Amino acid sequence: MLGVCYYPEHWPRERWSEDARRMRELGLAYVRVGEFAWALLEPEPGRLDWAWLDEAVAVLAQAGLKVVLGTPTATPPKWLVDRYPEILPVDREGRRRRFGGRRHYCFSSPVYHEETRRIVTLLGERYGKHPAVAGFQTDNEYGCHGTVRCYCERCQDAFRKWLEERYGSIDVLNEAWGTVFWSQRYRTFQEVELPNLTVAEANPSHLLDYYRFASEQVRRYNRLQVEILRAHAPGKFVTHNFMGFFTDLNPFPLGEDLDFASWDSYPLGFTDLMPLPEEEKLRYARTGHPDVAAFHHDLYRAVGRGRFWVMEQQPGPVNWAPHNPNPAPGMVRLWTWEALANGAEVVSYFRWRQVPFAQEQMHAGLHRPDYAPDAAFFEVQRVVEELGALSLPPPGQAPVALVYDPEAPWVYEVQPHGAEWNYLALVFLFYSVARRLGLDVDIVPPGAALQGYRLVLVPSLPIVREKALNAFREADGIVLFGPRSGSKNENFHIPQGLPPGPLQALLPLKVVRVESLPPGLREEVEGPWGRFSSGLWREWVETDLSPLLRFADGLGALFRAGRYLYLAAWPSPELLGALLVGLAQEGGLSPKPLPSGLRLRWRGHLVFAFNYGPEEVVLPVPSGVRFRLGGPRLSPYEVAVWEEG
Amino acid sequence: MLGVCYYPEHWPRERWSEDARRMRELGLAYVRVGEFAWALLEPEPGRLDWAWLDEAVAVLAQAGLKVVLGTPTATPPKWLVDRYPEILPVDREGRRRRFGGRRHYCFSSPVYHEETRRIVTLLGERYGKHPAVAGFQTDNEYGCHGTVRCYCERCQDAFRKWLEERYGSIDVLNEAWGTVFWSQRYRTFQEVELPNLTVAEANPSHLLDYYRFASEQVRRYNRLQVEILRAHAPGKFVTHNFMGFFTDLNPFPLGEDLDFASWDSYPLGFTDLMPLPEEEKLRYARTGHPDVAAFHHDLYRAVGRGRFWVMEQQPGPVNWAPHNPNPAPGMVRLWTWEALANGAEVVSYFRWRQVPFAQEQMHAGLHRPDYAPDAAFFEVQRVVEELGALSLPPPGQAPVALVYDPEAPWVYEVQPHGAEWNYLALVFLFYSVARRLGLDVDIVPPGAALQGYRLVLVPSLPIVREKALNAFREADGIVLFGPRSGSKNENFHIPQGLPPGPLQALLPLKVVRVESLPPGLREEVEGPWGRFSSGLWREWVETDLSPLLRFADGLGALFRAGRYLYLAAWPSPELLGALLVGLAQEGGLSPKPLPSGLRLRWRGHLVFAFNYGPEEVVLPVPSGVRFRLGGPRLSPYEVAVWEEG
Amino acid sequence: MLGVCYYPEHWPRERWSEDARRMRELGLAYVRVGEFAWALLEPEPGRLDWAWLDEAVAVLAQAGLKVVLGTPTATPPKWLVDRYPEILPVDREGRRRRFGGRRHYCFSSPVYHEETRRIVTLLGERYGKHPAVAGFQTDNEYGCHGTVRCYCERCQDAFRKWLEERYGSIDVLNEAWGTVFWSQRYRTFQEVELPNLTVAEANPSHLLDYYRFASEQVRRYNRLQVEILRAHAPGKFVTHNFMGFFTDLNPFPLGEDLDFASWDSYPLGFTDLMPLPEEEKLRYARTGHPDVAAFHHDLYRAVGRGRFWVMEQQPGPVNWAPHNPNPAPGMVRLWTWEALANGAEVVSYFRWRQVPFAQEQMHAGLHRPDYAPDAAFFEVQRVVEELGALSLPPPGQAPVALVYDPEAPWVYEVQPHGAEWNYLALVFLFYSVARRLGLDVDIVPPGAALQGYRLVLVPSLPIVREKALNAFREADGIVLFGPRSGSKNENFHIPQGLPPGPLQALLPLKVVRVESLPPGLREEVEGPWGRFSSGLWREWVETDLSPLLRFADGLGALFRAGRYLYLAAWPSPELLGALLVGLAQEGGLSPKPLPSGLRLRWRGHLVFAFNYGPEEVVLPVPSGVRFRLGGPRLSPYEVAVWEEG
Ligand SMILES: [Zn+2]
Ligand SMILES: [Zn+2]
Ligand SMILES: [Zn+2]
Repeated sequence: MLGVCYYPEHWPRERWSEDARRMRELGLAYVRVGEFAWALLEPEPGRLDWAWLDEAVAVLAQAGLKVVLGTPTATPPKWLVDRYPEILPVDREGRRRRFGGRRHYCFSSPVYHEETRRIVTLLGERYGKHPAVAGFQTDNEYGCHGTVRCYCERCQDAFRKWLEERYGSIDVLNEAWGTVFWSQRYRTFQEVELPNLTVAEANPSHLLDYYRFASEQVRRYNRLQVEILRAHAPGKFVTHNFMGFFTDLNPFPLGEDLDFASWDSYPLGFTDLMPLPEEEKLRYARTGHPDVAAFHHDLYRAVGRGRFWVMEQQPGPVNWAPHNPNPAPGMVRLWTWEALANGAEVVSYFRWRQVPFAQEQMHAGLHRPDYAPDAAFFEVQRVVEELGALSLPPPGQAPVALVYDPEAPWVYEVQPHGAEWNYLALVFLFYSVARRLGLDVDIVPPGAALQGYRLVLVPSLPIVREKALNAFREADGIVLFGPRSGSKNENFHIPQGLPPGPLQALLPLKVVRVESLPPGLREEVEGPWGRFSSGLWREWVETDLSPLLRFADGLGALFRAGRYLYLAAWPSPELLGALLVGLAQEGGLSPKPLPSGLRLRWRGHLVFAFNYGPEEVVLPVPSGVRFRLGGPRLSPYEVAVWEEG
Repeated sequence: MLGVCYYPEHWPRERWSEDARRMRELGLAYVRVGEFAWALLEPEPGRLDWAWLDEAVAVLAQAGLKVVLGTPTATPPKWLVDRYPEILPVDREGRRRRFGGRRHYCFSSPVYHEETRRIVTLLGERYGKHPAVAGFQTDNEYGCHGTVRCYCERCQDAFRKWLEERYGSIDVLNEAWGTVFWSQRYRTFQEVELPNLTVAEANPSHLLDYYRFASEQVRRYNRLQVEILRAHAPGKFVTHNFMGFFTDLNPFPLGEDLDFASWDSYPLGFTDLMPLPEEEKLRYARTGHPDVAAFHHDLYRAVGRGRFWVMEQQPGPVNWAPHNPNPAPGMVRLWTWEALANGAEVVSYFRWRQVPFAQEQMHAGLHRPDYAPDAAFFEVQRVVEELGALSLPPPGQAPVALVYDPEAPWVYEVQPHGAEWNYLALVFLFYSVARRLGLDVDIVPPGAALQGYRLVLVPSLPIVREKALNAFREADGIVLFGPRSGSKNENFHIPQGLPPGPLQALLPLKVVRVESLPPGLREEVEGPWGRFSSGLWREWVETDLSPLLRFADGLGALFRAGRYLYLAAWPSPELLGALLVGLAQEGGLSPKPLPSGLRLRWRGHLVFAFNYGPEEVVLPVPSGVRFRLGGPRLSPYEVAVWEEG
Repeated sequence: MLGVCYYPEHWPRERWSEDARRMRELGLAYVRVGEFAWALLEPEPGRLDWAWLDEAVAVLAQAGLKVVLGTPTATPPKWLVDRYPEILPVDREGRRRRFGGRRHYCFSSPVYHEETRRIVTLLGERYGKHPAVAGFQTDNEYGCHGTVRCYCERCQDAFRKWLEERYGSIDVLNEAWGTVFWSQRYRTFQEVELPNLTVAEANPSHLLDYYRFASEQVRRYNRLQVEILRAHAPGKFVTHNFMGFFTDLNPFPLGEDLDFASWDSYPLGFTDLMPLPEEEKLRYARTGHPDVAAFHHDLYRAVGRGRFWVMEQQPGPVNWAPHNPNPAPGMVRLWTWEALANGAEVVSYFRWRQVPFAQEQMHAGLHRPDYAPDAAFFEVQRVVEELGALSLPPPGQAPVALVYDPEAPWVYEVQPHGAEWNYLALVFLFYSVARRLGLDVDIVPPGAALQGYRLVLVPSLPIVREKALNAFREADGIVLFGPRSGSKNENFHIPQGLPPGPLQALLPLKVVRVESLPPGLREEVEGPWGRFSSGLWREWVETDLSPLLRFADGLGALFRAGRYLYLAAWPSPELLGALLVGLAQEGGLSPKPLPSGLRLRWRGHLVFAFNYGPEEVVLPVPSGVRFRLGGPRLSPYEVAVWEEG
């Protein structure tokens, strides 16, 4: 199903019913409204103005549309901030930030919790049982603009309490953090400060705990909203729209409090910002890298425990990336189909119409600011038609699982050890290499059950907890661990028996030394599948296992014990590709290297193909296959769907 | 005429008369003094010491020199700052800056206005009617070191008043800024803050208004000085020395308050700092890019309504650029002649003698710190001789006008949309391509009369006001508009009928979409003159006009309606060159591509040629032409002057 | 002799005697302990806990080891900082920094002086006469993390007093700083502030004086500790461990207060951070640039007036550089031998065992965190064996002296004039070119006696004081001065008679102009030895001397008067190499270009060879020479020693 984000407050009231009519006519089902409207709903402290929103919802309902109502807490009004300046967050540099953008609040602020409770309760009371309201979105893009981590006094207070709950006694904290080092011993929890503005680097356990705390504060804040909404809106869903390539926040715990996850899909901007090779950035500047959208579909499907929406789908050039190209013709349709192929329940375009004023005036919509339909409008029309002719079977489990650890980026941010080490880049490399082989991938958090997967990829899992270890044990496929897996314990110590720590139960080896390398220094790696290169990271392994791959000096780069493998380097895409081909075949899969811009995706018996590249490709299908969309020759930016024989 | 900047306070008194004698002997007419001397004129609060300045002026007068007296307000003394710390500016990061450099004051500070009134009045009373004082310079290089924009409490107060005057009611402001977006609605002007330290980007209308306000505060401050000086110094001129490639300040309104504009010409430093291609930076490291000085002469001639001085002319290596090369031999003479060819009334060298201490000790002068004449001295001698043999006709109107919009850099600073979009770079590209074709260019502000110009270049004019539109209507030459022209209204909204907004009255087309591109992504553009490339920026145009140039996908890149053209891309120099050749020929001009380092300039019947390149060039002159300086073969760094046949 | 850094407080007590036994067994003589242990020694204000340290020292003593005791002042405990927040330093941006790293104190804080006095006295009283304590290390790595320069109120007070002592009257300061420039005149010392957060650049004399002051505050602070230790620990040495490529602190005055200097040798990290050509960084990523360790040995031998230790020797990958490669096999042994060849009395490895928690957990040691010996352990074993078979003659004077001026980096930091001008880079170029010719180099401060040196290199000495001038006069070898020598006087003025100022007594020439160039702009230089290039910097010289080298425009680049030479450019390595070959030969030396990775070093009659390169080299030795270690073919990362014939 399709939807759209709509801001009635930006447009003349006389326009609303016409807009609603055309939404319905286009075939949209859902309309998200209200998520930045606090100052309009409460123009003066305590004076609520519901009239306009009542009317907007009524107009949409009348046209047969369902409403998704956003809570307006991402934008506290000026009067509120002036009354309680403590709401404003303090940044890492110790500067109190100001009103004038959005997300100008601290997640730990008691008074903001109070105000949130007040406005969300009012909203829930008024719309919780409204028949046209399908559900709620809490706030908007938690953490955007670097707001997960605040360094104010309230956060310091809350952090101290959090530590006290976690550790019970200060001696336990001192032990856990290793404060014997550099005389950092604390006598009371009151002595602990936030880890910013230190003269030398702060204690890594201190930093990691603070990142955990900050992420949990967001969950706590979100839960406050969810509980109110559940109380007032029985039977309605509650979701939140997460972001792309964003790691300050662990989305999985929030996902547990939601009915399903949503995410905001901007493939071009994400491609411009992600650390990819320059030539890929240029090649995919107008399409997005072919794995960017799918990666997040797979991630947020897991966050939503199988259910997710694309709450905001890029419909044209956006306004916020360093470069904002026009999507290649057909891409909005392609992105929509790909979301559906990956299991999205709804794809909702951001936004109905480009707004001609304020911060986002250069962000395209389905319509231009002059009310005429924009290019994406016609692509959506086509999707609606095509959707009508095709019924989508329920999505199944993929053959490959990739373990994504939301804590890992924090660990590596605290101690990257090498300037180019980037967790997301490594994960994306594993994901992308698998997808280039035509393999569907489920992304799962550490500890998730792994039964049924032929192949499990663990690009890097620094902290291996009992639950994750058990899941690996009980996995019935091959499990490949990447570098630095098991390299830290819960407290950010090197494990007593050395890395990979608890994984030694599966892999009898010890990582006795690691190194990070400048990008220009490559290491050759050789094995039965050929000669490859690695770089950026290498490990020295002590083991009785005999290596499957060796570095130029003869030492091992890849080890195997039963169905578990350990890769002691940051691989090149070629090396990883050759390795995954072998493992997938062994797992009974049929990996086939695809043309660089082509991607496939199974949903039940339907196979979807997406051509992100500028060249026509011939699809790897047996003759006589039944096409439901397109055919065996796929033009650039085109989609095909066929039934698996 | 020639002049020099002189700091008698830096040198022993016994040296003054010898210096004055040698100035006169060299042929200088004007001497600028006093512009940083507050602490010497008022060593203690209220205790004035005029003796030394009286004597200095007397010594210069005795030698037959005219004095330009600077007001000393760029450097308030320490005691003043200690007494009123609120004078000190606050930067974008919210940090109160300190005494110890210069320009350490806020333009909005009421107490600094008071102190300025006091010291300028005293100066006006004492020297306003002095026969040797030709005129005054207010302050020095307003805005240098990023000081146009201050973020202090006083500025916040003043900004609120400014907004109240501009908008009358807060509802009008809310409408103008589109504060319905992101709940930014204000209830009173007192609620509006300065747009720094916001969590997400500030509202663009808010930012633009603040940039306008900040620039106007400078004008207001300058007018305070001008009015006092006019009152006490009837018949004397008042000027100010503006800077190069500096856009925080709109110089045109200030120009209206002055008798003429002045500017400080440092071609080498500007070339090092300007975003030019690396190879041009190296090629012209010792000469300055051949269009840098001329561009500013043409700009400030407009600011001074036809009259300008070069108040500070680079005489050797300077101290402030990332690299400070020695000018190629002859360049000081060349720069002087070029300033005169462009209409400068006076070229004044900075400085008489290199000072061996403090911040500028590495800045060359006409003399070395050991009193010996430096290289530039001899070049000035030569200019004086040559000037004696040549009488300069009054400068006339150029055949080409370039519309330079001081507000445009603010608009694009607020929303560049593409990381490399830079208004100055685009303007300089248009200017330079025209100059490479041997065309003289007048720079004019939007709204200036355009009659008599064969060709009008508008590299980009985002906000097109009524007056500017009328000027385009009444222009009698061809008018070429560049990308993003008419893309915003006065309030920083996209115009209702889409860009180019009011220009649609001249060009029946709509820009329905734009994109910014990374530098590596080039677009081909083809038309009757050949095949070229564009990049960084592209627009999609809806129109019945048939395009003169097309992108590779067949869509139009250049449109024409009558004598108006619209270019929907950031052109390569080659593309723009081919286009300007065609348009200039159509306008009855004879554009001729010049060797890369050669530039020509007409002043009345005299033609000046300047060779910025390291190779000899043969001038494009008919045989038998009468040379007044040099001849038809022009050595590197040489000047020639001939009479037009 | 060899030693090790050990933190008994990080390990279980039951481990201590085993550790001590194995240290002794390995052949170590010294163990440094205690330098970050304040919070353990004084867990509550005034409650001292000596028991653990008493025991640790006893255990080490029992094993026959000598203890070096560090004062714990680099890490004041949290309770101390909470009691006196004024101890915390303020950075250049005006931000009070926080507890949580190390070195979180201001060198000017009176209360921290008091607390230092208290804890050091207690330490001295307890261990000053302990038979196993060989000596003391004061604090740890003064200035690390940018802590030499603090911008707090206490520093401002102290700076004002320092200025008053230096100048006596404010008029003298005004004259010395040239505050007549930009109205910076001060009326009292109380008016002078610290030179941060100024709007334009601060006065250079002000900055230089502040950098001098800040460095002297460290010396004063160190002397406070030294005096207490000398009083309580008669006959014990006192040293401090300095850092590599660190210029905020002048180490020579501190050296005068110490018995000998120590330094912390991390060749890989220093190579990664130093501005070297990219290809050299990659070539030597796993060995360190071949001149990095030697340069510091030679420097700190001078600081220690002939005596130095390597207090911390890198034993494997470190944790703090942008990239942290594994040292090539053999490098720990090579570095140790090279330190000894250069005169180190003790080489002490950092650390006995890698600690598995806190900030430095990724820093290798002689043992892994799991107690097993790490790679370096075995290299140290080999050194111990080899050392037993070789008695080292006392080190002698090198044939070449290089004058290293600790004030020069401050001068050039204040006014680099060219973006790439870097004093350390120029010094290292001179050093490295000499070493590549097989020449041993003594590094000496300006003013040191120069008798006995065949060649004296002065890469750049901006301020030439009487004592330095006399040393040059009395030198009996050839003296080569590099660019900008003599370019400033004591007060940061250009000398009255122009540069090279006082050096004009030796070299009758005047530098009348200088320029800095972008890296892409090269100048050719030609002379009897061929044609070379220079860049970044060029000077114009007025003199009757006829140049030995000329720039392409015919002007002189190298001048000579008797045994003094002046080089008026930043030379390429090739140019400098050719020049040094000629001068060394003239001085009776036999310079021979070595393979790029090979270095030689004489100690008495023993010649040491070190192969930093990845290729085997054949040593330039006469046949029949007697090898004491290795032989004439030197494998990569190998060491050879032979007796000079
Ligand atoms: Zn907070
Ligand atoms: Zn201000
Ligand atoms: Zn301080």
